[in-house]
Amino acid sequence: MENPFDRIQTPDDLKSLSLSELEAVADGLRDYIIRMVSSHPGHLGASLGTVELTVALHYVFNTPYDRIIWDVGHQAYGHKILTGRKELFATNRTYGGISGFPSMAESEYDAFGAGHSSTSISAALGMATASVLKGETDRQHIAVIGDGAMTGGLAFEGLNNAGVSRSNILVILNDNGMSIDVSSGALSKYFTRMTASKSYNHFKNSVWDMMGGNTRPYYPKRFISKISGAFKSMISPQASNLFESLNFRYFGPIDGHDLHTLVEVLQDLKTIQGPKLLHVVTKKGKGLKEAEKSPTLYHAPGKFDLRTGKIIPSGINLSLAPKYQDVFGKTIIELAKANPGIVGITPAMPTGCSLNMMMKKMPERVFDVGIAEQHAVTFAAGLAAEGMVPFCNIYSSFAQRAYDQIIHDVALQKLPVVFCLDRAGLVGEDGATHHGAFDLAFLRPIPGLIIAAPMNERELRNLMYTAQLPDQKMPFVIRYPRGRGVTPRWKTPLEIQPVGKGVCLCEGGDTAILSIGAIGNNAQKAIEMVRAQSGKEFGHYNMIYLKPLDEDLLHGVFKRYKRIITLEDGVINGGLASAVCEFAAQNGYTQQLIPLGLPDRFVTHGSVAELHKECGIDADGIAKMILDGDLLR
Amino acid sequence: MENPFDRIQTPDDLKSLSLSELEAVADGLRDYIIRMVSSHPGHLGASLGTVELTVALHYVFNTPYDRIIWDVGHQAYGHKILTGRKELFATNRTYGGISGFPSMAESEYDAFGAGHSSTSISAALGMATASVLKGETDRQHIAVIGDGAMTGGLAFEGLNNAGVSRSNILVILNDNGMSIDVSSGALSKYFTRMTASKSYNHFKNSVWDMMGGNTRPYYPKRFISKISGAFKSMISPQASNLFESLNFRYFGPIDGHDLHTLVEVLQDLKTIQGPKLLHVVTKKGKGLKEAEKSPTLYHAPGKFDLRTGKIIPSGINLSLAPKYQDVFGKTIIELAKANPGIVGITPAMPTGCSLNMMMKKMPERVFDVGIAEQHAVTFAAGLAAEGMVPFCNIYSSFAQRAYDQIIHDVALQKLPVVFCLDRAGLVGEDGATHHGAFDLAFLRPIPGLIIAAPMNERELRNLMYTAQLPDQKMPFVIRYPRGRGVTPRWKTPLEIQPVGKGVCLCEGGDTAILSIGAIGNNAQKAIEMVRAQSGKEFGHYNMIYLKPLDEDLLHGVFKRYKRIITLEDGVINGGLASAVCEFAAQNGYTQQLIPLGLPDRFVTHGSVAELHKECGIDADGIAKMILDGDLLR
Repeated sequence: MENPFDRIQTPDDLKSLSLSELEAVADGLRDYIIRMVSSHPGHLGASLGTVELTVALHYVFNTPYDRIIWDVGHQAYGHKILTGRKELFATNRTYGGISGFPSMAESEYDAFGAGHSSTSISAALGMATASVLKGETDRQHIAVIGDGAMTGGLAFEGLNNAGVSRSNILVILNDNGMSIDVSSGALSKYFTRMTASKSYNHFKNSVWDMMGGNTRPYYPKRFISKISGAFKSMISPQASNLFESLNFRYFGPIDGHDLHTLVEVLQDLKTIQGPKLLHVVTKKGKGLKEAEKSPTLYHAPGKFDLRTGKIIPSGINLSLAPKYQDVFGKTIIELAKANPGIVGITPAMPTGCSLNMMMKKMPERVFDVGIAEQHAVTFAAGLAAEGMVPFCNIYSSFAQRAYDQIIHDVALQKLPVVFCLDRAGLVGEDGATHHGAFDLAFLRPIPGLIIAAPMNERELRNLMYTAQLPDQKMPFVIRYPRGRGVTPRWKTPLEIQPVGKGVCLCEGGDTAILSIGAIGNNAQKAIEMVRAQSGKEFGHYNMIYLKPLDEDLLHGVFKRYKRIITLEDGVINGGLASAVCEFAAQNGYTQQLIPLGLPDRFVTHGSVAELHKECGIDADGIAKMILDGDLLR
Repeated sequence: MENPFDRIQTPDDLKSLSLSELEAVADGLRDYIIRMVSSHPGHLGASLGTVELTVALHYVFNTPYDRIIWDVGHQAYGHKILTGRKELFATNRTYGGISGFPSMAESEYDAFGAGHSSTSISAALGMATASVLKGETDRQHIAVIGDGAMTGGLAFEGLNNAGVSRSNILVILNDNGMSIDVSSGALSKYFTRMTASKSYNHFKNSVWDMMGGNTRPYYPKRFISKISGAFKSMISPQASNLFESLNFRYFGPIDGHDLHTLVEVLQDLKTIQGPKLLHVVTKKGKGLKEAEKSPTLYHAPGKFDLRTGKIIPSGINLSLAPKYQDVFGKTIIELAKANPGIVGITPAMPTGCSLNMMMKKMPERVFDVGIAEQHAVTFAAGLAAEGMVPFCNIYSSFAQRAYDQIIHDVALQKLPVVFCLDRAGLVGEDGATHHGAFDLAFLRPIPGLIIAAPMNERELRNLMYTAQLPDQKMPFVIRYPRGRGVTPRWKTPLEIQPVGKGVCLCEGGDTAILSIGAIGNNAQKAIEMVRAQSGKEFGHYNMIYLKPLDEDLLHGVFKRYKRIITLEDGVINGGLASAVCEFAAQNGYTQQLIPLGLPDRFVTHGSVAELHKECGIDADGIAKMILDGDLLR
């Protein structure tokens, strides 16, 4: 039997359907998402949880005139599929294909671009305010934000401002109790209490009954809400919950998989002016049993069997090198056993950064602080001020969220916090929002910061070891990439990695490559390729530390070589290339300098290999640059 | 009669006093603050509001073993005076003197350094967590945070995490209804409702009476709190206020100028484990009538008459050039009259950035979003996405708070937000936390951003004019310094400042200075001094734009001059110096490059002139560098 979903190309196609046809569309959409993601890996659980909400929103609201702003965007696959990208969806997250996140450049239905969390309320308020100023009183602005993202300070700042606004803003709290891992923090517990509390709903329903209404557990229409407000004020003039404290009209909680209720409530809410919040309870992974059972695993499961839901193992190969994150996760346990001062901190990424390993072994010494990078850093600063040795693990691109805290609360206070920035450099399929492109450049100007990037597992371990030694009194950044390293037998003995010292990997010839971090492995391969083809020798120096810069090594290199290539998997503007240029200028060296790294534009999504190639920092590209670039003279 | 205040050198001297003697100490402390600040300008109003709280805290708690963390630190003058810095206080904010903010390097009583807002809860939680891990169960950790700072997202992130902690943390909400200007946002209105609501307090008191207590409007001791909790749950299982939603035990509101109550309540709270919040209502400027009447003016009033409280005019001179902030404040009105798309946004600094002028004339087009830099930027992005032309004015050092939003929500989305970064460069007496030292360096790596710095009022106006033109489609940063410009008759006609084009101010000789921003005026003076002394000519080029870099101009300069000096009032690492080094390296120029700017260390407090001198970027220093540095060959 044909499912009406098959006929849907844009939200206009939904408008004439009956509610039962809409339900069929939702079922079709869910099946389509499962089918597509099973063979084209991406984020699964979040979008399965918002199938009914997505259908209801596009049915009730007049998109793209009305603005739906998806926070983060993991949950927006259904939205993409219903808004003209059904066939294109097979290209999701691939090089040249559509983005895995909402993108203004991709579709007029994507009202605001996302990727990082907690931005939707602020963006929606900006849009709603523009509508007020332009007199577009009929336009609706809807921010859909998860309970995890709601813990980010930006979301709170947005609520605080929106609460005094007279604009048409509807915040939909998509409460599934999860970030990528289980949500943490007081807010999450509060949502659980709100949802679980039968007596609360009973209380609300009683008010409703008193007013002659039915038993729906939300207050529709302004009139009823006013009355219930008056009733509440007989008991206490306080707002009855957190959102009402911030002057939002609160509605819910309602079942986010009940399409009828969703449509009805959203239709009601359309008629209510001012800031309002609808609390929708959903299940991450809804409709795929395995995903419902293991939501963290199925957040982005890779390929899985469509029939059983089981994840298809990607050919386990014992000779594979480990993931850097696991080297971090295992090494911190090793260090923490010997150093009782060590604690681990993650802003909602225990699984992603592998701190979950330490969490299991030493639960009292690991802190998942929620999606809250700013707090993660200042919290770490407080711990360090009392003599603890906090390892604060943040994805490189999310560390942008904590820039002021790194400067003001850590570096200026001279506190020895250890920052482990995972996902540094190009991250691949998540694309521009998630590339750790800027860290070297934005950290280098900060006084007193030690900045390091290991080329392999051994160096990562040694840097972690060095950073936690008692005589190490300065903040210490270690940034390393997503994915696997290069050393299958990675568990080398822990040794000091002397601060501010690089190493020579090979020498000879007229040209030297100075590299920092794991991208240096591409240089090694390139040198081997060029050597095989030309017989020429090269110098290759692994800087390890961007700051302090190894000036002894640089003097040696500048005295010996005719030309110098810098290589980094970060933007050239401000990073290693700049540091070496500055060094050369200040010391009167006049050699040719060739900077390799990320260009001065945002890099798209695709596999890491494809993106390295595009930027000319894969082994082939480096070799070709040397061979074609007349660098063998 | 001797006041016991005169005998107080450290908090230990308070411990043996009677409550009435403590009150005398508070009076003495207040008089001392007023006297000192009247002649040694600094922040006044906030510290007058916390006199009783400060005395009570140091009386009840065992500092420095117990940790008091002052948020921002404007309110900590009393704390400094009571903790060994009474005489030193005459050096407050002066070069070589004590800092105007808490500083860990200055005193063991300053448990955490501050300056930027909203950090105290996170830092206190870090310290409290360290105490739990170290088994110091008796140690208390107190964060004192204003209602203004409470709107910052970081504070919320801290509350959310602290609410699930089992550590000894007491948050004191110092509610005076003010940031520097009147607090804005829903939270502020909520606090007002809580405080004003007689029936709320009546309700609480009734509960208390029922339990056989007295009429104190807070619940002391765990036992009573439990009972009242149970009573509340008969009505609703919800937490009764915002803080209780986040699992904090809420106490208050109480009168922050009633020393007896403060002492009593704090003593009670000492015995209660876990996260708790005390809501204290204070009056900014308390005890100085003029300051109570005009709290914004008396936030940091400069010198004032001790007897009358009246501010001493600093010799109004009509021939003085205007403040840059006022040029901004007046020019945006001029532009907004012609361009209906323009709106102004400030995170709680309407007076400081002079957007208050536009607020008066066009109230519906200016948004004070509270202390919320992240939101200010993403809100601006939402406005720009709908075709508005937001001018988002943020102090340079506070823009560090919004770094991710500038990258992720504005630059990546290619939205033409205009950022006006006031207080760029060295700001003077506020010191390291407030210097706008890093902006050029951290903004330059961001793709697609236009970055400009005017050398004078005319350029500021022209940049603002250029940034809002309809064909200007990219985000546009204009950074300018604190204080006065150089052009008394500043209101020049508005002209396009061509994007990416610098100008030649003078040419000749073998050496060229490339400057960006208002610091270029120091170069001009230096050139005149050197010219007068040596008769030599110089080149001086005002870059205006850091990005895009004027490569045509640079090629001309590099072809003509033997040596090139770069000059900026930002860190050398990553700013103009780096940009020019990179340009030279990539284009094979081998001239000597001499970078002038801020060094790779945090610069202290003092007058801007003193600090420029220290960094060698005052006119004398630049001239001396040229004369002594053998640069006249």
